[in-house]
Amino acid sequence: MTAGIYAARGRLDTLLIEKAATGGQITNAEKVENYPGFPDGISGYELTELMHRQALHWGLKVLNAEVTALEVNGGSLALRTTEGDFRCQTVIVASGSLRGKLGVPGEERLLGKGVSYCAICDGAFFQGETVAVVGGGNAAVNEALTLTHYAARVELIHRRNELRATKVVQERLFADPRVHVIWDTVVEEVLGQDRVDRLRLRNVKTGANSFLDVSGMFVATGMLPATEFLKGLLDLDPQGHIMTNEQMETRVPGVFAAGDVRHNSAKQVITAAGDGATAALSAERFITERRKVKQ
Amino acid sequence: MTAGIYAARGRLDTLLIEKAATGGQITNAEKVENYPGFPDGISGYELTELMHRQALHWGLKVLNAEVTALEVNGGSLALRTTEGDFRCQTVIVASGSLRGKLGVPGEERLLGKGVSYCAICDGAFFQGETVAVVGGGNAAVNEALTLTHYAARVELIHRRNELRATKVVQERLFADPRVHVIWDTVVEEVLGQDRVDRLRLRNVKTGANSFLDVSGMFVATGMLPATEFLKGLLDLDPQGHIMTNEQMETRVPGVFAAGDVRHNSAKQVITAAGDGATAALSAERFITERRKVKQ
Repeated sequence: MTAGIYAARGRLDTLLIEKAATGGQITNAEKVENYPGFPDGISGYELTELMHRQALHWGLKVLNAEVTALEVNGGSLALRTTEGDFRCQTVIVASGSLRGKLGVPGEERLLGKGVSYCAICDGAFFQGETVAVVGGGNAAVNEALTLTHYAARVELIHRRNELRATKVVQERLFADPRVHVIWDTVVEEVLGQDRVDRLRLRNVKTGANSFLDVSGMFVATGMLPATEFLKGLLDLDPQGHIMTNEQMETRVPGVFAAGDVRHNSAKQVITAAGDGATAALSAERFITERRKVKQ
Repeated sequence: MTAGIYAARGRLDTLLIEKAATGGQITNAEKVENYPGFPDGISGYELTELMHRQALHWGLKVLNAEVTALEVNGGSLALRTTEGDFRCQTVIVASGSLRGKLGVPGEERLLGKGVSYCAICDGAFFQGETVAVVGGGNAAVNEALTLTHYAARVELIHRRNELRATKVVQERLFADPRVHVIWDTVVEEVLGQDRVDRLRLRNVKTGANSFLDVSGMFVATGMLPATEFLKGLLDLDPQGHIMTNEQMETRVPGVFAAGDVRHNSAKQVITAAGDGATAALSAERFITERRKVKQ
């Protein structure tokens, strides 16, 4: 959206293509406390709404569609989407990332039946119950804290013996008597007939197996960049993030990348927004320079 | 300030050293319209206040002092300031930039007597008068627009035949009958006994000299990075900006740079804030990794 605000203010003919709701992952954040300018914090949903309103104010057009391919076609770029194809001079890939799956037996089968990837979306279904959260970063700790509004007990299962989350967020977690951390442990299997009823765990240090009774499991182990539609066009890192330089340029002239989808992104709202502004200004410069060459 | 918010939330023992008022250049912006999250725009001063409050909320300490030197001292870093010396493990240089001078005769002598580098600070002194603004980027165009609140006529003097400013900002300028643009022209001399009364101009295409009667000249030709205190410690580009990689690391381990002071910065509030978050997270990782090596 920041790239959109900048491009629209630069009076470039710009289209934002979004397959779901604008804003992406952050719309699910209960409270964003580290986006500068909101000292009391703001919900991810509200912050997204403000940015969306700002982008529309400057004339950004938004299309609800899924991009299925990006192709280089002579001197221009072609985007294939579920709502038709588009030719353009530049593309800024800001497709973000999706919650990674654990990839353990039972996870797929019990999706929506106790297995979830979003506490703010599904937390209310677990009123008074015991739920597990898997992970150790900011996402996992925030999921656990959100779930304390609903669940009676939250088990945070982490494969290491320390959390990666920001210290203030960790402090909140450790201060909450409803949360219990299970260290050095991974989930091996999700069990239950029609709904999740327990997890098979393995301690990675001792190798010992154990069972944990829960009615839900929230997975927050990591994010996968949404770059499948690129089909090898750009250089990616082993996890699938797009390689860029600090100007947000990729290896294909006219194609830029911004935000969580980018290699070495700090994966914060503020860094993604910064990337977006840089990408839009780079795209504008690219178009201006090409126009000059043609003259 | 964003680096400060992130470092404080990471519970690092952090000190923000500021020689003037926190916020820097942006505090002088009448209205910031492109910082995502404020669809109706916000004054630079207000935005700074919000960030400052947020940083203090998370426990950031602020010291009013000028840094005179940064030195590597064995395994740690030493900062010399006008309020004493500090030893630290990491330093994030976010010293920003200062308005560049034109370097023409009369500019220095008539500083504060019609020569100014800040329209919002000094504009009110030129009620009903004719003033000149020198430059063609966003800073210059915004200075000209701010001055229309006070001056009867604003002459924008630009050495090229097109502006670099964002299109929407340009449109506003061209729509304002109080502003007149003098293209392909540079200021050669500032004239006046006790106060500015005219400028000697030169057309860069024809070489012709001319005179322009004005009571003030606002210089907005470019920004100089504030890196003198580094005295050769870091790699700089020819203009004096600090070279970093996308993690905001400089060539000296533990020293990071963020914002306008950095080479290839897009020089926007949002990109500077993004840099700050990235730098603080890099600094945190640096400290954590060093601690692990020592164990």
